[in-house]
Amino acid sequence: MWPDRRILQLLGIEHPFLLSPMAGAMDWELGAAFAEAGGLGAIPCAMLNAETAREHVRKFRELSNKPFMLGFFSHKPPQPDNQREAAWRDRLAPYYRELGLDPNRSIPSPQRAAFNDELCDLVVEVKPKVASFHFGLPEPRLLKRVKQADCVVLCSATTVAEARHLEANGADIIIAQGVEAGGHRGMFLTDDIATQAGTFALVPLIVDAVKVPVVAAGGIMDGRGIAAAFALGAAGVQLGTAFLHCPESKVSKPHRAALKTALPEDTALTNVMTGKPARGIRNRVMREQGPISDDLPQFPLPANALAPLRAKAEAEGSGDFSPLWSGAATSLGRAMPAGDLVGLLVSETQERMRSLARMQP
Amino acid sequence: MWPDRRILQLLGIEHPFLLSPMAGAMDWELGAAFAEAGGLGAIPCAMLNAETAREHVRKFRELSNKPFMLGFFSHKPPQPDNQREAAWRDRLAPYYRELGLDPNRSIPSPQRAAFNDELCDLVVEVKPKVASFHFGLPEPRLLKRVKQADCVVLCSATTVAEARHLEANGADIIIAQGVEAGGHRGMFLTDDIATQAGTFALVPLIVDAVKVPVVAAGGIMDGRGIAAAFALGAAGVQLGTAFLHCPESKVSKPHRAALKTALPEDTALTNVMTGKPARGIRNRVMREQGPISDDLPQFPLPANALAPLRAKAEAEGSGDFSPLWSGAATSLGRAMPAGDLVGLLVSETQERMRSLARMQP
Repeated sequence: MWPDRRILQLLGIEHPFLLSPMAGAMDWELGAAFAEAGGLGAIPCAMLNAETAREHVRKFRELSNKPFMLGFFSHKPPQPDNQREAAWRDRLAPYYRELGLDPNRSIPSPQRAAFNDELCDLVVEVKPKVASFHFGLPEPRLLKRVKQADCVVLCSATTVAEARHLEANGADIIIAQGVEAGGHRGMFLTDDIATQAGTFALVPLIVDAVKVPVVAAGGIMDGRGIAAAFALGAAGVQLGTAFLHCPESKVSKPHRAALKTALPEDTALTNVMTGKPARGIRNRVMREQGPISDDLPQFPLPANALAPLRAKAEAEGSGDFSPLWSGAATSLGRAMPAGDLVGLLVSETQERMRSLARMQP
Repeated sequence: MWPDRRILQLLGIEHPFLLSPMAGAMDWELGAAFAEAGGLGAIPCAMLNAETAREHVRKFRELSNKPFMLGFFSHKPPQPDNQREAAWRDRLAPYYRELGLDPNRSIPSPQRAAFNDELCDLVVEVKPKVASFHFGLPEPRLLKRVKQADCVVLCSATTVAEARHLEANGADIIIAQGVEAGGHRGMFLTDDIATQAGTFALVPLIVDAVKVPVVAAGGIMDGRGIAAAFALGAAGVQLGTAFLHCPESKVSKPHRAALKTALPEDTALTNVMTGKPARGIRNRVMREQGPISDDLPQFPLPANALAPLRAKAEAEGSGDFSPLWSGAATSLGRAMPAGDLVGLLVSETQERMRSLARMQP
């Protein structure tokens, strides 16, 4: 029934649906439920060390023997800059005092490791069907090992130039990440958010620019969006925010509540959470410190000084300091078990395609 | 053959295609060619006084007796602010000197009049099928006269909140203007460009939020985009940039050349051309003064001091100071007579819907 069988064959899946590996918002539980329903499962590893990631893979495999992706960040590790980090702590100090926290307490270390030898060892060991990278491909030495482990290599492109670069450098499938997408922009050849185009423009232009299959991401929440992505020439869709609504996701209470009602205009690209632009639902720290700010510490350091504020606020039921990552169309989401949602999306898409077909003379 | 016949019946057209009224880039010639091919023609009046607009209608009617829209801007007229205007002229003075122009010469007056009594008189007199507004609806007194003249009232929404406002205040059809769209954002309840969502997210959310028909705009260049818009629930599409490539458009040589090759990342929202955000192809003045700048004179005043620079540069074949309005997907455009392009879009869309239909089990 699917327009383009390339990725079904390449990935060994039933439906051309990929789950976004949403670090910090999900784990193997959502990943395995999605895989069992016929899509490509996901385990986000961007905030895990190799040992914990190995444990997540083990738990996934207890629940499912279906194909999955391991998702990694492949950013350049940050150059520490004491002055910037101190300035950021100074900006946050009034919030610390307001929440009864000591602004001079020590803060946690980065939780987001770039793809490295240890994580690459893990890939070689567990041989996931797919290794997926955000912020560009890893260095050639590591990429070669991933490919030798027979992994299909996915990477996000946010511009046509990035898509061409990825194809030339070994990506097997390209995620065309439209600006509607939730979470971090996968930008790696530019840091100018004014270059970031919507899914509607980006997908057909990338489809025309490369030969590898293109998966659409950004704003896809229901059968309408999936049918539209195929109409634009995508070979499949990557779904993220749609599955944050599921009980298997691991979002905080305030995050889950915000996802239900946020309109596109209630979301924005912000860099104050981590130092790199990402789409989230506007909250207090985005409004008061951003949504875009200069002079932040490099990715992912700004998250460190926010962590105690976030923990304290979330414990009190507030998302004021949390990254409420969300795509622009989140309010189209449905809260239901992930497997049921996959089934619903399949039938909605079929129905949508059928209704377009009925328009024929 | 079309999924939703509401707007065909409402507008008396054959195909659910609306031509964007692109002020400064087209006139009756493109509008009539589009109408003759079965879409809704357009005459942009945002940069015309009533007398010239009347002449444009007369010329359209010499070429076609098909339905058309008159397109108006309905912004609040600017409050003059000598200090801001002087500061803007100071910023541009080095360019004047570089191009051999006197920075102290007198500059032309605004060419963009907000919808007013004279233009409303014109509407009542010529009774176009459609009156289309950008930047919100005109004041109730004028809107009432337009409706009494039996015009269908269209207006652009860039957020869900704007769509709800338009439905509540009398719009008969809502244009969901995704952020991929070229030219001015129709924003009227917000001036924060971070609220501006892509077509993919905006269309289904607006479709769900209102009962009136929703027309998709932004990034729609070929049959893939049209089929995708219908998949998302649109009742029709508004096409702009796709038709700037046609010989009937009135874009300058450097503009036409730039439209052929610009990628999404080569376009950006800018306010330096007129004081309001609009998507154009990046050129020198956007790069050096924007793309977004604070402290500009109010819309449309910044265009005045740019006009002599633009005229001189264009005469020398340069678009350095021109508003190179363009949607994000312009490079998908085809340079062919407008009537042929309408026909091609119809057949491409049919083929696309047929190919989606073939995916059915």
